[in-house]
Amino acid sequence: MNNSRNIYLKMKTLKEAREILFDLFPSDKVFPSEFVSASDSVGRVLAEAVTAKLSSPHFHASAMDGIAVKAENTFGANELSPMELTVGENAFFVNTGNMLPENTNAVIMVEHINVIDENSLKIEAPAYPWQNVRKMGEDIVATELLFPQNHVIMGALLSGGIFSVPVKKKPKALIIPTGSELVDWRNAVIEDIKPGQALETNSFVFGKLIESCGGSFIRHEIIKDDMEKIKAAVYDAANSDFDIVLIMGGSSAGSEDYAKSVISDLGEVHVHGVTIMPGKPVIIGSVNNKPVFGMPGYQVSSIVAFEQFVRPLIYRMLDQVDNERTKLQVEPTRKIASKLGVEEFLRVKLGVVGDRIVATPLPRGAGCITTLTRADGIIRIPNHIEGLNTYEKVDAELLRPVSYIKNTIVAVGSHDNSLDTLADGLMAIKKGVCHLAGSHLLDTEDGSYNISYIKKYLPNISIRLVNLVFRDQGLIVPPGNPKKIQGIEDLGRDDIVFVNRQAGSGTRILLDYRLQQLDIEPRAIRGYENEEYTHMSVAVAVLSGAADVGLGIYAAAKALNLNFIPVVTEQYDLVIPKEHFESKNIRILLETINTAKFKKRVEALGGYHTERTGEIIAVLD
Amino acid sequence: MNNSRNIYLKMKTLKEAREILFDLFPSDKVFPSEFVSASDSVGRVLAEAVTAKLSSPHFHASAMDGIAVKAENTFGANELSPMELTVGENAFFVNTGNMLPENTNAVIMVEHINVIDENSLKIEAPAYPWQNVRKMGEDIVATELLFPQNHVIMGALLSGGIFSVPVKKKPKALIIPTGSELVDWRNAVIEDIKPGQALETNSFVFGKLIESCGGSFIRHEIIKDDMEKIKAAVYDAANSDFDIVLIMGGSSAGSEDYAKSVISDLGEVHVHGVTIMPGKPVIIGSVNNKPVFGMPGYQVSSIVAFEQFVRPLIYRMLDQVDNERTKLQVEPTRKIASKLGVEEFLRVKLGVVGDRIVATPLPRGAGCITTLTRADGIIRIPNHIEGLNTYEKVDAELLRPVSYIKNTIVAVGSHDNSLDTLADGLMAIKKGVCHLAGSHLLDTEDGSYNISYIKKYLPNISIRLVNLVFRDQGLIVPPGNPKKIQGIEDLGRDDIVFVNRQAGSGTRILLDYRLQQLDIEPRAIRGYENEEYTHMSVAVAVLSGAADVGLGIYAAAKALNLNFIPVVTEQYDLVIPKEHFESKNIRILLETINTAKFKKRVEALGGYHTERTGEIIAVLD
Repeated sequence: MNNSRNIYLKMKTLKEAREILFDLFPSDKVFPSEFVSASDSVGRVLAEAVTAKLSSPHFHASAMDGIAVKAENTFGANELSPMELTVGENAFFVNTGNMLPENTNAVIMVEHINVIDENSLKIEAPAYPWQNVRKMGEDIVATELLFPQNHVIMGALLSGGIFSVPVKKKPKALIIPTGSELVDWRNAVIEDIKPGQALETNSFVFGKLIESCGGSFIRHEIIKDDMEKIKAAVYDAANSDFDIVLIMGGSSAGSEDYAKSVISDLGEVHVHGVTIMPGKPVIIGSVNNKPVFGMPGYQVSSIVAFEQFVRPLIYRMLDQVDNERTKLQVEPTRKIASKLGVEEFLRVKLGVVGDRIVATPLPRGAGCITTLTRADGIIRIPNHIEGLNTYEKVDAELLRPVSYIKNTIVAVGSHDNSLDTLADGLMAIKKGVCHLAGSHLLDTEDGSYNISYIKKYLPNISIRLVNLVFRDQGLIVPPGNPKKIQGIEDLGRDDIVFVNRQAGSGTRILLDYRLQQLDIEPRAIRGYENEEYTHMSVAVAVLSGAADVGLGIYAAAKALNLNFIPVVTEQYDLVIPKEHFESKNIRILLETINTAKFKKRVEALGGYHTERTGEIIAVLD
Repeated sequence: MNNSRNIYLKMKTLKEAREILFDLFPSDKVFPSEFVSASDSVGRVLAEAVTAKLSSPHFHASAMDGIAVKAENTFGANELSPMELTVGENAFFVNTGNMLPENTNAVIMVEHINVIDENSLKIEAPAYPWQNVRKMGEDIVATELLFPQNHVIMGALLSGGIFSVPVKKKPKALIIPTGSELVDWRNAVIEDIKPGQALETNSFVFGKLIESCGGSFIRHEIIKDDMEKIKAAVYDAANSDFDIVLIMGGSSAGSEDYAKSVISDLGEVHVHGVTIMPGKPVIIGSVNNKPVFGMPGYQVSSIVAFEQFVRPLIYRMLDQVDNERTKLQVEPTRKIASKLGVEEFLRVKLGVVGDRIVATPLPRGAGCITTLTRADGIIRIPNHIEGLNTYEKVDAELLRPVSYIKNTIVAVGSHDNSLDTLADGLMAIKKGVCHLAGSHLLDTEDGSYNISYIKKYLPNISIRLVNLVFRDQGLIVPPGNPKKIQGIEDLGRDDIVFVNRQAGSGTRILLDYRLQQLDIEPRAIRGYENEEYTHMSVAVAVLSGAADVGLGIYAAAKALNLNFIPVVTEQYDLVIPKEHFESKNIRILLETINTAKFKKRVEALGGYHTERTGEIIAVLD
């Protein structure tokens, strides 16, 4: 194996890197243009100012249904002495939009005329000149400037008689996915994907992103880790009609990351590494005076690099301003540490609770692609800040409309891996930063659930406790139960490695309660100190062989085709403050969980019981 | 001519009409679904919940470049007694994303190892289990819910191994343009378009609108005013796979407006006329249980009807929430009267001046299509309000991003037809509701421009007066000057009809000054009382024969191929308060007008002189 490694050039800050990029490719370069049909022009950028070829209206047009008259002929008409007009001679029926007949300059509304017979009618008031008439050119005068250069076309061109439009060519990107481990998803059969292989999907996501900011793209076929082949593809692209080249993957300092060498062999590397997270390994280079990017392999990193460098560059080529996202002041639900010297882009879920907007941080791993689709906003933590305190007010850039965020129910509870002590859900209720909390807290004194905890922690808040579900907790073991585990009492065996849940979780309380009942010492259990934060993580630990057994819910075991040994059925309730209980969103939620359809679907998951689902368990005022 | 007229059914309020529509076509009807490729699924709506087929990662993967080890084997390594490892035996080089070799569970970063030779290396610290490892399923666990039903797909499906997706069928609309006056723009030659004919463009705009909210469309060819043909087209559509039918035009009460009869013959008319402006004549009906709309012929009306009825219906078919637009509190720059009993949708230009957002109303005509592309926002004036006062705070729904509005320079001046007294531009400066005002106010005492007015009206504001241009004002006459007009002195002739500008405009001041010098009585001029508000309107009046002559700028005459007799060259300046003079937007503006390119283009328009363009004429502190 080759263990020579690339070394990052001195890293640049985001600001420095953008300045280098924008100086290399200034926006005042004239970008080529082409003509397209007006109806295909929506979203395109005008290469030249467009002037109207046809006035609108291009004749004097009636603005009402009625009769067209020459106003001066009607002077003198009044209620006492109505004026009689002759149809086809000095009065002409017109509909809205019709051209005024010659020698007329006003329209009297149909409601204001008295028809006598087919040929005559009476009016009781005069018309004034140009009444109810849309004059020629009222909206658009031929030769008038319709849109300036660089305007983004949004319609209405056709009405000005513009059928063909000079627009800027779409900046054309070549996307080159690289990596020997990659498999083209279009040829892939899920069952045949081997460990170590990965689906190549990023190029398709990037194609859509490039189109959405006005560019076009060609996707190169996947190139394995073969520097000469990558080099040939970049050389060809830089010497044809491509405007941008993206080498996907191969930008970090790993031994098989060729992007830097490819670019420096063919042209110049200007930036290698930027002090942002995610997005750090991005490379900015040029070959034949064209921008060539080495994009990070992780999807979240590459998206940040795209938004900070590639998208602004496309906008500059089109002479467009990259519109800022709407910002809102939000409060993070927990303390967030951040590295000094690095600007972090932290994706968050947002929700409005009372008059605060609370932000729940999503996992920060550059590989966590689900954070891309789950995020409502991004908090940027600057280089010189070490982190944010809980409920410290900061700006978040919105990724979704405000109305969506307003309609989000903020729920915290034992499913949420950001919670690490037992009553965090109840604490969030106390602080007024959520609409409801999920809770399955066992009172080990009397075997009841939740109520004693609510009384203790939320003495001054009116609460409605609603049952969501009863669920089976049990031991999750590999298929076939190779170690023949029967119950909690087996956890102390020497040949068994256990995987635990974190201290304070409902499942942990349950385990410790049972161990105490069975008089088993926790330290006698191998792996007791290995903590996971979700049921699914426990199941994954068992599936991957990291542990022989864990305690969790049936659904997690079923999802991974593992065996399940029931231990106890526990009560899972929703803790809802009275003030939110009556809100529209919570009402819809409660109506939904009360439907037969919902209960049927939950039962179908297995290990859940819905006899009391939706029932108000307790009213605590 | 047929003068039998449709009569509006009792009109409905917007709320009533929407309730009728949504009751007829409830959102809980299950809409058909189809399977599409994941890469074509962006923007589509999931017909079913989607669960992951493949975990991500689907193996334990290295999160760093380095060596993979079994953590337990490294315990005990420290600086004083480094541990030696053998490559290929108990240490394995891995790059980010690589699968961990069997029997390893941690990665030590490449920066933390000391390579001895090809086969051996040393570490000075132990690894802990799972350090620098992305565990299988860390981001997505196979079988895990990726997205719920009705979710709009935004990417990331592929990474979960989802290649084909069940999505809701796109609601399919038939758009039927109707009207004997219509010409298909694709077959049209501008020069051949006759007075009375109109380009049919609305169906193309509507197609784009339908696509943008998730539907698909077919455009029917234009049908002339022939009720049987329209009826046949609607019947066929309602009995095939269309979900919505739009009859474009033919919805008002004119004699050739057939939509109502067509719908009532084939099915039922539920709403005919809604108390909104624009949009009043919309018809909501059903044929074969499918929604059939009679859309107003005017484009602005039809867009409002689309946004209030058709778009929400498409969203309901797709089980989507029609996202509210962002709202901002704005202040109208002038008093706006509005009809009681009608809900008005007023399109406005917006700009941020200091800490206020000022809203300049655009023309309200339902035929003014340019207002669609020029508007930044919409102010809704409810049924029970008679109008808005100047600077009364109201909400505006935004049509553009806030950043766009922040970058808008608010300029008022003599080009703006909302101004009707001489110093309105200066008054707007005084009130702090614009960034600059254009001004060409002649001091008839000494022949100077602007300065004396600024001193009088803005005594307490620091002003920078910058010359924009000098321009020729003159008499605009028909081609060939048939009445042989030589100058202002001819305006008193009996055979000449004049068209005037509004009292208080710079051009009017100029005219009155000249008339006084020439000792001509205003009332001796035929048409002196006919006032237009823009140079272009004056030119149109001359072109259309409504007047023989008007006073205006050369560019207006040239635009319509009219003749021009120069009268005077006047000074047109920009009045800029000092506080805005130093802002970025104004700086860019001033840099632009100082470029040779700008001056050349202005000169090319004719009638403009740029010798002093960009020069600071006066500093008034």
